Amino acid sequence: MITYNKDATLKDLGGGVKRKILSEDKEMMAVEVHFEKGAVGAVHTHPHAQISYCLEGSFEVNIDGQISVFGKGDTYYIKPNIPHGVVALEKGILLDVFTPRRDDFLE
Amino acid sequence: MITYNKDATLKDLGGGVKRKILSEDKEMMAVEVHFEKGAVGAVHTHPHAQISYCLEGSFEVNIDGQISVFGKGDTYYIKPNIPHGVVALEKGILLDVFTPRRDDFLE
Repeated sequence: MITYNKDATLKDLGGGVKRKILSEDKEMMAVEVHFEKGAVGAVHTHPHAQISYCLEGSFEVNIDGQISVFGKGDTYYIKPNIPHGVVALEKGILLDVFTPRRDDFLE
Repeated sequence: MITYNKDATLKDLGGGVKRKILSEDKEMMAVEVHFEKGAVGAVHTHPHAQISYCLEGSFEVNIDGQISVFGKGDTYYIKPNIPHGVVALEKGILLDVFTPRRDDFLE
């Protein structure tokens, strides 16, 4: 039931963004998202609830049109279907945890 | 909707364990748990699903009686009502994310 980070695949999504799926089950999924400086996670929505924890770096965060900046150790919560996106102000990593699982991330 | 780590209270639970509640809503809750070396998160159960991410240190993990060791960047998933606990092998921090919210953590 443990997922070792070194065993997980870092998938290149293009545009300076890479994704690593860690623990997941139908109820939840944890995903590291790695950003190069200036990389963009475009504003989008999904029906899953989400908490993001900043593991490294700092980000400009857009939640439902409200812009903030957050950095290491800070978190945000995204209600289902609320538009959100980020811009990496420096190289950084987010930990995104979803409920339920993002089945669209599974291949 | 952002929770800044510096603004969250680190609550001393005794026994070398401290807890900091970050983002939470009825659907989800993110909590940092800080452990001194040797501190114990006793085996317990709850009806919430949980993913834990090791932010710092290394831990002996007991999931339903199976013992493993995990460290920085590693995760585990705990299905609802499955017994689990940890022992900190060195000073460390876990990020625990629950669904739904741990209302029992709110005062």
